[in-house]
Amino acid sequence: MRHIILTTLLLSCTMGVLAQPQEPRIEPDGRVTFVYADDTASIVQLKGSFIPKKKKIKTPAGTFGREQVYDMQRLPADSTIWTFTSEALPSEMYTYRFVVDGRPIADPANPCFVRDVKDTLSYFIIDGETGGYYMDRDVPHGKVERVWYPSTMNNMAQRRMTVYTPPTYDEAEQDSFPVLYLLHGSGGDETSWTDYGRAAQILDNMIAAGTIEPLIVVMPNGNASLDAAPGESPYQQSEPSALNITSMLGKIEYAFVPEVVGYVEQHYRARQSKAARAIAGLSLGGLQTIYISANNPDTFDYVGLFSAQTTNLLTSKRAKTISNIRNKAVNLMNMTGFHFDFLSGGKADKFSHVQIYEDFETKLAVQFHIKPYLYYIAVGEEDFVLKLNNDFRKKLDEKNYPYVYHPTDGAHTWENWRKYLVDFLPRLFKND
Amino acid sequence: MRHIILTTLLLSCTMGVLAQPQEPRIEPDGRVTFVYADDTASIVQLKGSFIPKKKKIKTPAGTFGREQVYDMQRLPADSTIWTFTSEALPSEMYTYRFVVDGRPIADPANPCFVRDVKDTLSYFIIDGETGGYYMDRDVPHGKVERVWYPSTMNNMAQRRMTVYTPPTYDEAEQDSFPVLYLLHGSGGDETSWTDYGRAAQILDNMIAAGTIEPLIVVMPNGNASLDAAPGESPYQQSEPSALNITSMLGKIEYAFVPEVVGYVEQHYRARQSKAARAIAGLSLGGLQTIYISANNPDTFDYVGLFSAQTTNLLTSKRAKTISNIRNKAVNLMNMTGFHFDFLSGGKADKFSHVQIYEDFETKLAVQFHIKPYLYYIAVGEEDFVLKLNNDFRKKLDEKNYPYVYHPTDGAHTWENWRKYLVDFLPRLFKND
Repeated sequence: MRHIILTTLLLSCTMGVLAQPQEPRIEPDGRVTFVYADDTASIVQLKGSFIPKKKKIKTPAGTFGREQVYDMQRLPADSTIWTFTSEALPSEMYTYRFVVDGRPIADPANPCFVRDVKDTLSYFIIDGETGGYYMDRDVPHGKVERVWYPSTMNNMAQRRMTVYTPPTYDEAEQDSFPVLYLLHGSGGDETSWTDYGRAAQILDNMIAAGTIEPLIVVMPNGNASLDAAPGESPYQQSEPSALNITSMLGKIEYAFVPEVVGYVEQHYRARQSKAARAIAGLSLGGLQTIYISANNPDTFDYVGLFSAQTTNLLTSKRAKTISNIRNKAVNLMNMTGFHFDFLSGGKADKFSHVQIYEDFETKLAVQFHIKPYLYYIAVGEEDFVLKLNNDFRKKLDEKNYPYVYHPTDGAHTWENWRKYLVDFLPRLFKND
Repeated sequence: MRHIILTTLLLSCTMGVLAQPQEPRIEPDGRVTFVYADDTASIVQLKGSFIPKKKKIKTPAGTFGREQVYDMQRLPADSTIWTFTSEALPSEMYTYRFVVDGRPIADPANPCFVRDVKDTLSYFIIDGETGGYYMDRDVPHGKVERVWYPSTMNNMAQRRMTVYTPPTYDEAEQDSFPVLYLLHGSGGDETSWTDYGRAAQILDNMIAAGTIEPLIVVMPNGNASLDAAPGESPYQQSEPSALNITSMLGKIEYAFVPEVVGYVEQHYRARQSKAARAIAGLSLGGLQTIYISANNPDTFDYVGLFSAQTTNLLTSKRAKTISNIRNKAVNLMNMTGFHFDFLSGGKADKFSHVQIYEDFETKLAVQFHIKPYLYYIAVGEEDFVLKLNNDFRKKLDEKNYPYVYHPTDGAHTWENWRKYLVDFLPRLFKND
């Protein structure tokens, strides 16, 4: 294997299969061969985002497809090498893991992986129509910065964001650029869109192709209880997956324009007008996008909801008191097994940011009276938030609030969120 | 476990055990408890950088300590929970893995990990004298940028570097800053010093403490065959571990000043004088540091060798011809199992950068005639490059070339390289 590196390199450059690490091997027709060496394993299986989901399971949170695994074969039968070759796969970025005697592990022969909450998932990219956006190419590259900005949230002095500046940012010193604020989901952080979401590659490739104009993209950390990704935070004791609810108490939305937009417009050559500001988010980030944009109707002309979680704990008519909110959270905690850390605090002033959710109908009326240039809703037909999105769209329809609806196939996945970003970007800043 | 998050957070903040993720649990006295849940494992063991090495093994490449593993216990005996509690450990950043029925895996309950070539290693930090430098603290943070710069190396149009700018960089718009160029070892890339090396935390903490003055730190990719880390490169087919030798052919050293220093001084407010430039590298990066600084005696006033690999394939008196070099590489390949991709090419012009290694004695004489302000050599007494470093120091001693020698305990490890950086930084820019 080690002896064919240069040959593979030359071969695969010619064939355009560029982002292919040594393992797995991608054939020109899109079939993929996975190889795993293990001299003691009894059963080796393969889990992957390219494997069709099995029959659906109904849960209180929605309907999910059940993950399927494929068996890998010893080749030859008495060897220590396990392999599996897929059908020809369409162009896409796929994640996968080996399941060795029941335990999922990343592919030890593939240095390309992304973090998904606490797991590491191996990945590969098949070039072509979809995956082509995610490939590293010899095009001009923007800069990706990890930046700390001052914050008053939860007594953290600073919070971390990722900022993409376009390739021409340094050269065009007199120019200013429009800004997209791009938010992650629960379990994610300020690194999700550049790592799992391939945002830098998408932006580099689309700017190079002339499909979009150069822009700045700001990807802050949207966890109310954490200031930065694991390993980069003084407050890293909390589990990422436990943070959904504190991030649904309005704190992120409340601080967003003064702290995040304020910092960006002070430190970057950002164009400071409604027509040059966009905001979009996936899942929990979609919820934050709804409320940030509705509470700041003069700020954003472009609003994108990618598989948005459209409801929050605090808008229910029953949730009029703190104790009601607390009860709701306890129920949710019992249902999901998640811990919500505000339950341990117990002080009413923890809810001072609830006002962000109050009078939502009125705020929405103002937002659509002023008119955002684009209100965009994308969701997959197998996504468990589809019904929530249908309810939300019904609310918009009843008031004749205009929006662009981009329904797709697929579920609550990064495959969809990357595609939504690619679809959303060329719609931006048309009135700037 | 999930219900005690807030308590843990408050408790550990008070106790100063800040960078502690939920797992493993660090007691105030420095004992560490590891927990792993698995209902089918037969044997679970623990590997870790805190476990003393066993008796030494002699190999052609040098003498190594053999890694030891500790057995974890089921607690209680019939449960699915495996645990191990260490002795009290000194303040440090430690990496570890679980070995489940013979297979090493990262701790699934710990979101903090670093990449080591293709492996993921879980880590934790014990605050205090040493680990205190590596902790995230509420101090002003510098910015960490991933930047692409133009290059002519190997027909790659661009290569990727990481740049740290200090917290005051944006405010002090009229100021310029001294620059440290900081190089990784073989198997590493432009992310190693910020991830495994905790360079951003070290710099933030030392600048905040007033131990060092604000500076820019540039961490380029030092692999001649790769332009960027796995997943960020169009050329990612090669295995990182196979790159040692192409990175020892002089290409990195040849292109360094025109391409890396040139880019930095054009795009950052870098002070452009010998007294404001430092270069240091670990292992293979130490080799590159020796030759970059010797070939550019007017450029760097501060030179740091951290566990440097001090010889290269091409300086041996026997290696006078390409075929000799080729034979040496084939021998090394057979010995190590590594593939060296230049063997597949076979063209003599692949060696046009060999001149960087020629007339080394003369170049060194010029470098020490002009006198670097600091020539610094650090190496551990159990490091397999200790003998190489002794030979190199003997060469310097024979000519009365002055240098600072910083011998330590320990081996060829990130524990040592982080400490060397902490020791090296306050010695910089004293004549600037």
